[in-house]
Amino acid sequence: MRLGPASTPVNPHPSHAPLTTVRIAVDCMGGDHGPAVTLPACRAFLDKHPAAELVLVGTEAGLAGAAGLPRTRRVIATEVVTMDDAVEVALRKKRDSSMRVAIAQLKGPHGEAGGHDTPAVGGPPAADACVSAGNTGALMAVARYVLKTLPGIDRPAIATVMPNRQDRYTTVLDLGANVDCTPEHLLQFAVMGSALVAAVEGREEPAVGLLNIGEEAIKGSETIKRAGELLRQAGAAGHINFFGNVEGNDIYKGTVDIVVCDGFVGNVLLKTSEGLASMLTEFIRQEFTRSPLAKLAALAAMPALKRFKSRVDPRRYNGAALLGLRGLVFKSHGSADAYAFESALARAYDAARNRLLVRVQERIGPTLAAMPGFTTASPQQAA
Amino acid sequence: MRLGPASTPVNPHPSHAPLTTVRIAVDCMGGDHGPAVTLPACRAFLDKHPAAELVLVGTEAGLAGAAGLPRTRRVIATEVVTMDDAVEVALRKKRDSSMRVAIAQLKGPHGEAGGHDTPAVGGPPAADACVSAGNTGALMAVARYVLKTLPGIDRPAIATVMPNRQDRYTTVLDLGANVDCTPEHLLQFAVMGSALVAAVEGREEPAVGLLNIGEEAIKGSETIKRAGELLRQAGAAGHINFFGNVEGNDIYKGTVDIVVCDGFVGNVLLKTSEGLASMLTEFIRQEFTRSPLAKLAALAAMPALKRFKSRVDPRRYNGAALLGLRGLVFKSHGSADAYAFESALARAYDAARNRLLVRVQERIGPTLAAMPGFTTASPQQAA
Repeated sequence: MRLGPASTPVNPHPSHAPLTTVRIAVDCMGGDHGPAVTLPACRAFLDKHPAAELVLVGTEAGLAGAAGLPRTRRVIATEVVTMDDAVEVALRKKRDSSMRVAIAQLKGPHGEAGGHDTPAVGGPPAADACVSAGNTGALMAVARYVLKTLPGIDRPAIATVMPNRQDRYTTVLDLGANVDCTPEHLLQFAVMGSALVAAVEGREEPAVGLLNIGEEAIKGSETIKRAGELLRQAGAAGHINFFGNVEGNDIYKGTVDIVVCDGFVGNVLLKTSEGLASMLTEFIRQEFTRSPLAKLAALAAMPALKRFKSRVDPRRYNGAALLGLRGLVFKSHGSADAYAFESALARAYDAARNRLLVRVQERIGPTLAAMPGFTTASPQQAA
Repeated sequence: MRLGPASTPVNPHPSHAPLTTVRIAVDCMGGDHGPAVTLPACRAFLDKHPAAELVLVGTEAGLAGAAGLPRTRRVIATEVVTMDDAVEVALRKKRDSSMRVAIAQLKGPHGEAGGHDTPAVGGPPAADACVSAGNTGALMAVARYVLKTLPGIDRPAIATVMPNRQDRYTTVLDLGANVDCTPEHLLQFAVMGSALVAAVEGREEPAVGLLNIGEEAIKGSETIKRAGELLRQAGAAGHINFFGNVEGNDIYKGTVDIVVCDGFVGNVLLKTSEGLASMLTEFIRQEFTRSPLAKLAALAAMPALKRFKSRVDPRRYNGAALLGLRGLVFKSHGSADAYAFESALARAYDAARNRLLVRVQERIGPTLAAMPGFTTASPQQAA
């Protein structure tokens, strides 16, 4: 993609003034490779982001390689959540895991989650965002338990970006956190996605599409129809920029900035895309190695093939946002290499620097207040 | 794909003895291009299938170009369902459309739909299968109205194939006919899909996967969990070959022969795949035309790129099956060219020749009878 994330939003709102320093807590033990990947990624990231500071969380042995990293503080955790650990294990057994301790850096000493420059009783939280390559289910569960959801948000969602034909990104959510969604949840996703794109991509009024199926068929389930109504209302009230229904191919056309769907559909479309891209890449490789002549042609074609590969390289846009929590948590792909993990750090940095948490709260309040039948947050939300 | 559809099934069952001649009714007016595409496709198809006979349905003017086609009968219809016509228009206004008349060829003179060699009161039906490139919603509605559903089937489904890394096809259903599915519907899809793959691909015990989401997340909705139980029971009873849950990427890995999902998810994954494939193809084209040097490289790379393109050419597997009706209807892509439409004719031919209708009925009865709480067909099904 030629357009990288913009670090400075258009028309900055006073409360969106970028943070001058950004502190990121890193779960150095997460992912398939742990510190062998996360520490080199941290080093490269620090080189490119002079305003960044890191809180590295890991075991004593895991953080041994972190010596000499500038603008870095180490926090020791004694346990590690593995990629296979059940959610219950991460949540109830491993209370001193690097994942949990990293997330806890987002809370102030008395439990407030804000920016590290937000005044809070007893001092600010240690970090503005957290990045982990640990397993998604555990990460979501622990983050939800430690941070709680924002007022007005019933369900946190997972958002990622996919490249599109406009050489930009389409943000898609939810990607698997919620298998059954109500129309209200889909509206919340639309609002949170809008805040994310405004913060990270610098597009203040990003267009939102509701994922639906072809005109030929009966247009969507009852949930989707009702969600369409809610999104239209929110659009008419100026709370979001609602484009209307979109179909699966619009994700890659770049018809809208944000595509909203339930977590089952989002997960299926993400995995299907990964499978198709991987099959096509493999077929290209096979055709260019089929014969000595084909291998010769591959040499000539190498520069074009490399440009192609880099253009759709998923490592460039690694880093999914867990939205709706009282703290910014980003999830790296478990199999990420150092380059990919560095991308996730950069996405978390942009989001924190441009005050994603404040933006979500500013947007969600008025949207929900305008909804018919809106009631105040449930006890769980206010926890 | 190197493995084309097999014309002769393994272990033929007596009632599966292939038809000696196969009659296909063709809606010559359907699709974006009408007779300009369908008639050349019919000619090419007849050349390659000496045991095939065609019933060409269209307007007088539309069928003018059909003169001289061997083994062909013409049936005149006075109306045409356009690609934009609402379902209601196709169903209630255009009662003499080429689409409807073509479908009606599958019924015997007294309303029985079977094979054209099936004894029926007053004579056999005029055709064994029907192919149309008309709009999906109209085709499904008209087919359902004219033919009715098979006993034991609540909802017809749309099945298509996608290429996979094994250089075979993965059959996916439903693709958009049903947005809300019960676990029982998903079981019916599994059974119908198994019959389709047995008839068209010659795999008598095809493996069925239930589309679900990653292990990390809560595993699927209540509907999916219950569907998993039903499919496991049907597998244990030997009615289907149930593999278990699969994820989106398994479609392209070729983990199973058949992937079952609801129509919303199926439509999204199909459209998403189309969008991604089209974006990647466009990016490859752009990179190979970016500079004079790249264009030169493209010349050298042409044979490999062509082999790649042909390997994933969607025209090769055009032709979705409308399953669960008392007659075999196949839907071609609306934008199909002659080569693609010929593929749809060939798929319909294979299905009819290998008695897909009989196979579906043979499989669905015992499966449903074994289900707890099974009751006899509803009045609509028995109509």
